[in-house]
Amino acid sequence: MTPRDALEIARNVCECVRKSVCKIVGTEDANEVVGFGCDGTPTKKIDIIAESVALDILREYDVTVLTEESGIVGDGDVFVSLDPIDGTFNAVKGIPIYSTSICFSRSIKFEDTFLGYVMNLATCDEYYSLNGKSYKNDRKIKVSNRKDLRNSNILFYYPTRSYPFKRVRILGSASLEICYVAEGVFDAFVDVRLKDGRGYLRSFDVCAGLFICKNAGARMSDHRGRELRNKSLSLDERFTLVVSNPHIHDEILRVIS
Amino acid sequence: MTPRDALEIARNVCECVRKSVCKIVGTEDANEVVGFGCDGTPTKKIDIIAESVALDILREYDVTVLTEESGIVGDGDVFVSLDPIDGTFNAVKGIPIYSTSICFSRSIKFEDTFLGYVMNLATCDEYYSLNGKSYKNDRKIKVSNRKDLRNSNILFYYPTRSYPFKRVRILGSASLEICYVAEGVFDAFVDVRLKDGRGYLRSFDVCAGLFICKNAGARMSDHRGRELRNKSLSLDERFTLVVSNPHIHDEILRVIS
Repeated sequence: MTPRDALEIARNVCECVRKSVCKIVGTEDANEVVGFGCDGTPTKKIDIIAESVALDILREYDVTVLTEESGIVGDGDVFVSLDPIDGTFNAVKGIPIYSTSICFSRSIKFEDTFLGYVMNLATCDEYYSLNGKSYKNDRKIKVSNRKDLRNSNILFYYPTRSYPFKRVRILGSASLEICYVAEGVFDAFVDVRLKDGRGYLRSFDVCAGLFICKNAGARMSDHRGRELRNKSLSLDERFTLVVSNPHIHDEILRVIS
Repeated sequence: MTPRDALEIARNVCECVRKSVCKIVGTEDANEVVGFGCDGTPTKKIDIIAESVALDILREYDVTVLTEESGIVGDGDVFVSLDPIDGTFNAVKGIPIYSTSICFSRSIKFEDTFLGYVMNLATCDEYYSLNGKSYKNDRKIKVSNRKDLRNSNILFYYPTRSYPFKRVRILGSASLEICYVAEGVFDAFVDVRLKDGRGYLRSFDVCAGLFICKNAGARMSDHRGRELRNKSLSLDERFTLVVSNPHIHDEILRVIS
């Protein structure tokens, strides 16, 4: 499977997911809890519909799919990490920031990724990366050039312990927000939330976006500055993240430490 | 001018603004600084285009328009408070959360409002209120019924002094975010930011959304719990805001005090 092959598969998956969910976006129907994902989080009807459509397509290829609701599906040589709906809250509520995120890798290692693809299902904007370059809607993108942290625009997820709210949200779709860094719309994406002592984000939330960001010139690490290269595409892996243009990365690490 | 008349004018204004800006949304062209608004903030090209289109329509009526860039225009009996683009950053960057907000009042007082109208220009969703009821796309809306603050979803703008970032953003279009409270998508909108000792939000940012929220059953006050009824629709007025479903309003005030 070439990166171009994978791009066409990813496009087809996202387009079919988009068509299958667009009728229930913003409805109570979409929000119905129909089970629990392999990591114990509640599964909404919209997630199940999206995953089912995506898996029907991916099963035609020689791939192993790692996905939020069903866990591991198939046993092919290529590893596909899939988040059918990233931003379920937004999709259910009709806020136009939700996406499908899909990542193809030669192994279970993040560093063997050869295609990352994210589609905003509300706007049809597509972000992808292959062969060392990143694109939005076929136009090459790169991270911002801002060097001044004080004037930077940050997507910042921080521990909310100090406020008794369930969700202080930023935009609510990590894969898409990381793509906003790749195209220079935001200067950084920071998620320092911890869950059971580990990061909050899962690999299928972020791997496609991170690959797109890397090839758009971003620097990335966990919140302590440790590299992500050896992270694996697994259900167990959890991430904190600092993804930014290269100029402000060190300063962000200092500020949040 | 009846509330229905005002609704049709507001719809026409927003539809014309939407058509005029959609070609430059997400481009550098939209972001060009072309001057400074009457309150000293930089005016972007997209703001000027939108305001110009809106004023061309509103000048045909017997109204006094209060608007971000031009200040006060006309001397009619009905007061129209206009934000041509609320969420300029998002519009310029292609993030699909930006709106036109427009509010009709019998006097300069907020309590004499008789129509509030907000359109998400990216999705064409419209929110409006007249005759004591509020609607999204012609469907009646009301605020959420959640009583448990710990499980509530809050749009929360807080002072960012403690972090050296320019913008820790939530969704970035106050008028639209307040409408999300009106329809029960979020349980509250809180903005406790201060600028020169006063609130951060201006009346044209919030008056349409607040009127829609009020008629959808929300409670609203400034961050100290003081009523907003006597606020005026003027360029000088600035707001802090706590807008929520009635159950959690007091508790939010306690938490932020």
